Amino acid sequence: MSERLDDLKLRLAQLSDLAHAMALAHWDQQTMMPTRGGEARAESLATLTSITHEMFVDDETGRMLEGATAELNGAGGGPDGDSDDARLIALVRRQWDKARRVPTELAAELARAASIGQEAWITARANSDFESFAPYLEHNFELARRYVDCHMSSGDYACGYDVLLDDYEPRMPSTEVSDLFAQLKAELVPLIATVTAASPVDDAPLHVEFPVDDQRRLVREVVALMGFDDAGWRLDDTVHPFATRIGGGDVRITTRWDEHFFPYGAMHECGHGLYEAGLPPAQRRSPLGTAESLGLHESQSRLWENMVGRGRPFATVLAPRIAALGGDELSPLDADTLYRAVNVVRPSFIRVEADEATYALHIILRFELEQALIDGTLTVRELPEAWNARFKDYFGLEVTNDADGVLQDVHWSAGLIGYFPTYALGNLIAGQLWERARAELSGLDAEIAEGRLGSLREWLRQHVHQYGSKFTTKELLIREAGGPVSVTPFTNYLKAKLGDVYGIDL
Amino acid sequence: MSERLDDLKLRLAQLSDLAHAMALAHWDQQTMMPTRGGEARAESLATLTSITHEMFVDDETGRMLEGATAELNGAGGGPDGDSDDARLIALVRRQWDKARRVPTELAAELARAASIGQEAWITARANSDFESFAPYLEHNFELARRYVDCHMSSGDYACGYDVLLDDYEPRMPSTEVSDLFAQLKAELVPLIATVTAASPVDDAPLHVEFPVDDQRRLVREVVALMGFDDAGWRLDDTVHPFATRIGGGDVRITTRWDEHFFPYGAMHECGHGLYEAGLPPAQRRSPLGTAESLGLHESQSRLWENMVGRGRPFATVLAPRIAALGGDELSPLDADTLYRAVNVVRPSFIRVEADEATYALHIILRFELEQALIDGTLTVRELPEAWNARFKDYFGLEVTNDADGVLQDVHWSAGLIGYFPTYALGNLIAGQLWERARAELSGLDAEIAEGRLGSLREWLRQHVHQYGSKFTTKELLIREAGGPVSVTPFTNYLKAKLGDVYGIDL
Repeated sequence: MSERLDDLKLRLAQLSDLAHAMALAHWDQQTMMPTRGGEARAESLATLTSITHEMFVDDETGRMLEGATAELNGAGGGPDGDSDDARLIALVRRQWDKARRVPTELAAELARAASIGQEAWITARANSDFESFAPYLEHNFELARRYVDCHMSSGDYACGYDVLLDDYEPRMPSTEVSDLFAQLKAELVPLIATVTAASPVDDAPLHVEFPVDDQRRLVREVVALMGFDDAGWRLDDTVHPFATRIGGGDVRITTRWDEHFFPYGAMHECGHGLYEAGLPPAQRRSPLGTAESLGLHESQSRLWENMVGRGRPFATVLAPRIAALGGDELSPLDADTLYRAVNVVRPSFIRVEADEATYALHIILRFELEQALIDGTLTVRELPEAWNARFKDYFGLEVTNDADGVLQDVHWSAGLIGYFPTYALGNLIAGQLWERARAELSGLDAEIAEGRLGSLREWLRQHVHQYGSKFTTKELLIREAGGPVSVTPFTNYLKAKLGDVYGIDL
Repeated sequence: MSERLDDLKLRLAQLSDLAHAMALAHWDQQTMMPTRGGEARAESLATLTSITHEMFVDDETGRMLEGATAELNGAGGGPDGDSDDARLIALVRRQWDKARRVPTELAAELARAASIGQEAWITARANSDFESFAPYLEHNFELARRYVDCHMSSGDYACGYDVLLDDYEPRMPSTEVSDLFAQLKAELVPLIATVTAASPVDDAPLHVEFPVDDQRRLVREVVALMGFDDAGWRLDDTVHPFATRIGGGDVRITTRWDEHFFPYGAMHECGHGLYEAGLPPAQRRSPLGTAESLGLHESQSRLWENMVGRGRPFATVLAPRIAALGGDELSPLDADTLYRAVNVVRPSFIRVEADEATYALHIILRFELEQALIDGTLTVRELPEAWNARFKDYFGLEVTNDADGVLQDVHWSAGLIGYFPTYALGNLIAGQLWERARAELSGLDAEIAEGRLGSLREWLRQHVHQYGSKFTTKELLIREAGGPVSVTPFTNYLKAKLGDVYGIDL
């Protein structure tokens, strides 16, 4: 009956099996692999990428797509735009058209260079040695430009950067991002100025040292409240934390440990993990069963990390547990003190440690620099200087060490160029979803204060996770959050919180 | 110039990259994967196996082989039987001929069933529940018989079992194994009778409990002496210990922990790891750079575990360290006491805990049962009874619990049928290599007693590891150990040791 559609689904399932192997290889490289294993890993990933690419782009996939479309039209007298099958075909058709333009050799080299680049970055960051890293970065940007060149004649993209951004945030042109970021900056800059001029908030709890083994126990407790389940999840150590799903029933999150600690990083990754765990089980080996965009993905991590984790209700759960770890230095620690301490606004060097108000400035800086690197107005050699100058401008801080500057993030080393904006989009989407969830879930604050996080998790599963890639991010937000990505819910949320924390009107 | 040969090598390198991904997937499944991830892992492995199989068996590989052979003949006026290229072509030609007979669908199903079967075995063994496991085992033996059927018309094999054995011990027919095992049994049965009738040896140190964390530290120390190197190796926990090389610079060994402990299991796996680490670096992504046979592989693990680890000289290294862990119960522990304790001969249920004298009987039992299962004279349902009856016959012990009987090993659950004999062959080969190494390395005992294991490791690298699969096991043993697999060096070694331990003439 629907033979072509079944053929297509089988091929997509096999591509998903290859993605499983690659996800595992990436996870292992960042958590387990001995350092000398990097070269062989890069070769293996390059070959898996070639094979995946060739299997996907070949003419047979095109014929399956044509056949499946015809079947769908025949069966219902026209494609039902909202059926899973119609959505699947549309999604795959778009990805196939894009992938067809990329030579296999380039796809493989992108994978190989990403894998090699990460190993070089780990060493370079440890030694704050940009010089040793520059050739890898140049190669990655050169490859990104070659990738861009494959797509420009399609007429689908207004500029080279949009080609890259589209891989992470499908259908979102950089002009839209720039508009949103301009609105965001216009709100944040005066907000930061006001808050940093207000009476300082006591953040002593942030400076207490905690034994890492105690931290591990607390993190295990917190992620268990969120929905982490030993039978289907792992939590491991890494240099640059991430979350991934290897396959059905196999979600892996990672964290790093610091003597000055709070469990928010692990909550962030667990938020990503809950999205992955909540994807539709019936679409387990289908592109429909994957996350739609990184902005949406990041909305889940940021919502759990910031709206829940750093919110006043959850401080009631955390404060006694953290006080118990901190010994004499922190006992007693009341929830209000903790809540205020972890929401202090202070410009600082490291993006992943930034507060919610200054965070977006870190992203805007990277977004602007990568656009310049791609359009050729900036070279890799000029990058540290450009970074430091812009950093001074945005944060008023002098970068004296590339490890705290241009070398702090893994992304560019791994070929993830055009990826950063999705983090700030995630904050905005989190603001929208949080506003909606609170309106719909009466008693949510009280539940959170008791450590009961199930209603919220279920709400997110119902309204976001279960759709996988069936809807675009814009469609999903219009259906489930009242409109496309917007700045206001996030800035309203932030003003309310910081007004409360600093005891001022915002 | 040698275009076809280069094409062939590139294809083999890509196949090796796929093997890398599969080795990682297997390692992860047995060390890291959450339990619910099993189904997706099986699907991924089945797809990787299909892709590998199809890439290998297709006509193009055959044309590359033909072309490469012609080039080789043309260049040298005839193939040089001992050149790396000539050996590579011969090896791959043999593997290609065999693989061509297997439908891709069967290859994939073998991989899928192996992965699923292992998960079922873990549960069944934990509950000593053969009933729940039987359907998986029936499926695996059914698949093995289908696999056998693909090959019988080739005329290359005298019986179905030989088809399976050849995958693990190439070119070794089961009649040869039976002959060796008959000689071995003829030596061992009276030896065991004599030794178990002699005055008992004190094995009190075997019954002391050691804290696992202390054991971990000792094991790390011991494997470091052997050549374990953090930059290129890992050591992890598992249910059924194994060693694997994921790729160049990435050797992974595993162990399990028991309250009654000695570091010999870890030394065993480290011996395997040293073989993998010593394979020729220039052949890193080539079949020539893989281990030639499992018998040879096992010779390395058994040599390190038993000849070195349980030998008198290394007891000088271990005794003070073990005494320190054992606290009051073991202090002082002299080297002679330790040496004698760990060489006590006593028939017991579990193969991996068996002493060197009774070990082979465990293998012979499995070898006979799997032959019967393959030739159809025994069914899976009859297996526990057959196991227990034969066990009573060989060991004089009554199996009362399948977990200590037919369910103790992972192999059949993972489709590894025809694999067991290689363990006993490994003991024999270890005997041959050990005899030769001791003859060539004067002062070896004194070095081992000081924990200096480098000369032996280097000798094994030079005489075994560095050849990879260039020579067959028989060729290698003739070159490096004076003759093909033989029983005498092993039984001579064992008589000398047990005579010493029990203070009797053997």
